[in-house]
Amino acid sequence: MGGLAFLLLPFLAPMATTAVNPALRALASLNLQVFPTFQPNEVNNYSVYYFEQKVDHFGFYNTKTFRQRYLIADKYWKTYDGVILFYTGNEGDITWFSNHTGFMWDVAEKLKALLVFAEHRYYGDSLPFGEDSFKDAKHLNFLTSEQALADFAELIRHLKRTVPGADGQPVIAIGGSYGGVLAAWFRMKYPHLVVGALAASAPIWQFEELTPCGVFMKIVTEDFRKSGTKCSESILRSWGAINRLSNTGSGLPWLTRTFHLCTSLNSEDIQRLKDWISETWVNLAMVNYPYPANFLKPLPSWPVKVVCQYLTNPYMSDSLLVQNIYQALNVYYNYSGESRCNNISETTIGTLGSRVWGYQTCTEIILPFCTNGIDDMFEPRAWDLEKYSDDCYKQWGVRPRPSWITTVYGGKEIHSHSNIIFSNGDLDPWSGGGVTEDLSDTLVAVNIPEGAHHLDLRSSTDTDPPSLQLARSVEVRHMKQWISDFYGNYRKQP
Amino acid sequence: MGGLAFLLLPFLAPMATTAVNPALRALASLNLQVFPTFQPNEVNNYSVYYFEQKVDHFGFYNTKTFRQRYLIADKYWKTYDGVILFYTGNEGDITWFSNHTGFMWDVAEKLKALLVFAEHRYYGDSLPFGEDSFKDAKHLNFLTSEQALADFAELIRHLKRTVPGADGQPVIAIGGSYGGVLAAWFRMKYPHLVVGALAASAPIWQFEELTPCGVFMKIVTEDFRKSGTKCSESILRSWGAINRLSNTGSGLPWLTRTFHLCTSLNSEDIQRLKDWISETWVNLAMVNYPYPANFLKPLPSWPVKVVCQYLTNPYMSDSLLVQNIYQALNVYYNYSGESRCNNISETTIGTLGSRVWGYQTCTEIILPFCTNGIDDMFEPRAWDLEKYSDDCYKQWGVRPRPSWITTVYGGKEIHSHSNIIFSNGDLDPWSGGGVTEDLSDTLVAVNIPEGAHHLDLRSSTDTDPPSLQLARSVEVRHMKQWISDFYGNYRKQP
Repeated sequence: MGGLAFLLLPFLAPMATTAVNPALRALASLNLQVFPTFQPNEVNNYSVYYFEQKVDHFGFYNTKTFRQRYLIADKYWKTYDGVILFYTGNEGDITWFSNHTGFMWDVAEKLKALLVFAEHRYYGDSLPFGEDSFKDAKHLNFLTSEQALADFAELIRHLKRTVPGADGQPVIAIGGSYGGVLAAWFRMKYPHLVVGALAASAPIWQFEELTPCGVFMKIVTEDFRKSGTKCSESILRSWGAINRLSNTGSGLPWLTRTFHLCTSLNSEDIQRLKDWISETWVNLAMVNYPYPANFLKPLPSWPVKVVCQYLTNPYMSDSLLVQNIYQALNVYYNYSGESRCNNISETTIGTLGSRVWGYQTCTEIILPFCTNGIDDMFEPRAWDLEKYSDDCYKQWGVRPRPSWITTVYGGKEIHSHSNIIFSNGDLDPWSGGGVTEDLSDTLVAVNIPEGAHHLDLRSSTDTDPPSLQLARSVEVRHMKQWISDFYGNYRKQP
Repeated sequence: MGGLAFLLLPFLAPMATTAVNPALRALASLNLQVFPTFQPNEVNNYSVYYFEQKVDHFGFYNTKTFRQRYLIADKYWKTYDGVILFYTGNEGDITWFSNHTGFMWDVAEKLKALLVFAEHRYYGDSLPFGEDSFKDAKHLNFLTSEQALADFAELIRHLKRTVPGADGQPVIAIGGSYGGVLAAWFRMKYPHLVVGALAASAPIWQFEELTPCGVFMKIVTEDFRKSGTKCSESILRSWGAINRLSNTGSGLPWLTRTFHLCTSLNSEDIQRLKDWISETWVNLAMVNYPYPANFLKPLPSWPVKVVCQYLTNPYMSDSLLVQNIYQALNVYYNYSGESRCNNISETTIGTLGSRVWGYQTCTEIILPFCTNGIDDMFEPRAWDLEKYSDDCYKQWGVRPRPSWITTVYGGKEIHSHSNIIFSNGDLDPWSGGGVTEDLSDTLVAVNIPEGAHHLDLRSSTDTDPPSLQLARSVEVRHMKQWISDFYGNYRKQP
C-alpha cells in the first residue's frame, strides 16, 4: 500500500543523515501515522477537488499559484443544522488521512456533517512547484505552518462562497499529531472561521523549553517498565553490552549475525545500530494499541508486553542480553516471520514528499529531545541545538528558529482562546508535550489511559476499551455544544 | 518640522497618480496624522534603541535582517505592579508618533508604565533594505501588516528577555488610525503577548463589504451639513458650477485666478482640481477639532464651522458660488495669510518613506470608497476595483487582494476575542468603518461625540470637552482592569 509506506518511512529515513540523537528521529514519528488498519465501518466515498491557492499568502511579489487538493464527502450532510468537519491535513497524502480517520466518518451521520479533508501544501498532490517543490531552500520557502493555515482559511472561505448551504454552517477543525497541532493553531489564529478544534495527540508544548526535553523518552521508558518486570532495565543495560561487544575482534560480525542485518557492521555503524534499536522502542510505544494491529508488519495486541517477555533479566552476559534484544526487536520486525534481514540504514527509501517533513523539523518544528540514562532507558544524549542547526544547514540550507513557534502561537499562554479539545493517550510519548489538564471550561483535556498515538481518531471497533469510548463521547458532546452555540447565535441575528 | 511634513504630505501625494476617486485619496489620510501640535505636558524624554529583526518572519530562505528602531521611556515605570504600554507604530517616523501621542505620556505616572514606541518596518529609520527598500515590488515584498505584527511580537519577547523586570509585566498595545488597527489585530493574533489593546480611530471594518463604500464620504458630508445652513448643499452644487465654467472659453484662466493656483489649468486638470477640493473637505472633517490647532498651517477651532460661514447660499451664480468655495478653502490653505498660491498637483513632494503607504493601499489595505451625490455632497463615483487594481499594477507592479484582510483578521466575526477598546470620534469619517458598539463585555466601544480623528490619543488640554475627558477615563479604567487581572492570575501562579 503505497500511501502507507510513504507515511511510515520517514521515521526510518529523513533524519538519518542529520540526527544527533536517536530520540530526535522520533520527531519524524509525528509523520508516522501508526495505527490499526481496520477496515472502515463503511466504504468511504469522497470526491476529489482542487483549489487554486497563492504560493505566498504573506507577500505580493510572488503571484504564483498552485492546486491544493481536498476531499469532500456529503452523504450525511444537512444544510439546515449540520456542520462542516474540516480535517487540517498534515504531512502526507490526504487520501491516506481520509481513509485512516474513521472517527470523522463514524460521527458524520450523527452530526449531519459535511466532511472536508484538506491536503497540506508540499505533500501528496499539493505541490507548489510540482517536481521542483523539494529542489532547494528557495522552493521550500513556502512550506510553513502559517502558509498551511492560510491555505485552510482561504479554502474555507472558498467553500462558503461556492457550496450552496455551506455559508450558514459552523466549521470544526479536526486533526491528529502534527495535524492536531494545526487544528489547535487554526482555532487560535482563525477563530472567525472555525467554532472549535479537536486536536488529537497534538504536542503543542513539545517546543522550546515548554516541556523538559527528557519527557518524551521517559514516557517511552515508562511504557516498557510497566509492560514487564525488568524490561526497561534490560534495555538500559543493553547499550553497554553492545558497546563492549563491538570492541572485541569478533564482535562486529557476531552483532551482524545476531541482529540478522542485511549488511556487515563496521565500527562506525554501531551508533546507527543503537539508534535503529532506540527508534524501534519509540515506535513500539507509539503503536502500543490494545488490539492486534497491522503496522508496516502486523503486530499483536499490546506489542510492548510481548516485546518485554524477552527482556526479563538484565543481568545476564552481554551476548545473551543482546540475543534477547534481538528476539524482542523481532516482534516488531518479523512478527509475520517473513523478514529475511534487517536494514538499519534505510535512508534513501521513500518519496521526496515524505522526506520534506525533515525540512519542517529543521525550520519551525523544532522539538528538543534528550536522554540521561537515569530517568530513561537510553544512553545519555543532550539536546545540542548548535549541532542540530549545523546538520539542518548541511541537509537543507536553512537553520532552525527554535523560538518562533512559541512567539507566534503562544506557548503555554493560550488561556484567552476557547473551544479546543486536546486529546492524548497516556501511553503515547507525544502526550508529554500535549495539554493533559483542562485550561478552562472550553480548553479541555481528554486523557485516554489505555491510549497510544491519537487512537481516538480511528474507526471505532468492538474491542475499544471503555476509556476510549468515553473519550470519543466527550469529544462529540463538546462538538455538539459548539454547533448549538453557533446556531443559537447565528439564528438570533436579523 | 521634517517629521510633520513627512507624515502630512501623503494625503496630497501618494495616490495622486492612481486614484480613481477623490474619496480614495482620503485613504492616504490614514497616514495623515492630523491633530493639534500642542506642546506635550512635559518634555518627552526617551532613549532610542534598535532591534535586529528578520526581514521575512514567514520563510527561512531569506536570512537577511534589519534594524528596527524603538523608543523607550521609563521615568515612571515600576517593575512590581506596572505595565508596558506598547505603541504599535504605523506608517511614519516613530519619533513623530511618540511626540504626538500625549495620552501615553499623560497616563505613564498613573499606570507606573514603561513606554515603548515601536517603529513600523519600511518607515522612518526601520528600512529592511536601506535606500533600496522602495526600489521595486521585490524589495517591498516584506511590507505587510503580518510582518509588522511579527516584528512587534519578536520585539516584546526581546524586551522580556533583556530588560530586567519586564518579564513579569503585562503589555498593552496602543495605536491610532492604521496603528489602532494594528493594535487591535495584534491583540487578536498575539493575545499571549498583550493583555489588551486600545485601538483609537481604527477602521477595522472599512474593508471589503463590511461597511457600505459610501459611508465615509457621507460622514464628511454630515459634518458640513451640521456646521452651517446650506453648507453641504453649496459644496454639492459647486461641482456643476466648476464643470460649467471649465467649458467656457474664459473659464479655465478664470478658475486658475480664482483658486490662486500656482500653474494654469488645462481642461484635463479639472478632475484633479475637483479631487484636490474634495480632499480638502475630507481633511477638514478629520481635523474638525474643538480647539485651535496647528496643522500644516494653523486652523481655528471647529474649522468646518468657519469654512461653512462662506457657504450659506447654494443658489447663487456659478462664478459667485465658486468664489465662495475659494474663500472656504482659504480657511484651510491660508488661515495664516502666508500662502502665495495653491498647488493642486503635489504628487512628487515628500519622501519615499511616506509614499510607501500607497503600496500598502495597493496590496492589503484595500478600502473601498464611493460617492453618489445623493447621500453625500460629492460627484457620484463608483468603487471600481478593476481600475484600482490596474492603477496599482502600473504604479507598484502588484495587484490588491481585497478579501485577504477579512480572511486573516476575521472581518466582523471577532466576537471570540477580548480586551480591545475601540474608540471613535463621531465627527471622524473613519468612524464609519470602526467599531462603535460594544461587541461584548471586553470588546468595548468608546464614542466621542465631539471627536475627530483619534483625538483621545493626544495630550490632554484645558479645553478638552467633557466627552473626551470621559472617554479617556473609561479607557484608563479598562486598562487598569486588564493590569489587575494580569497580576491576579500571575501572582496566583506557583
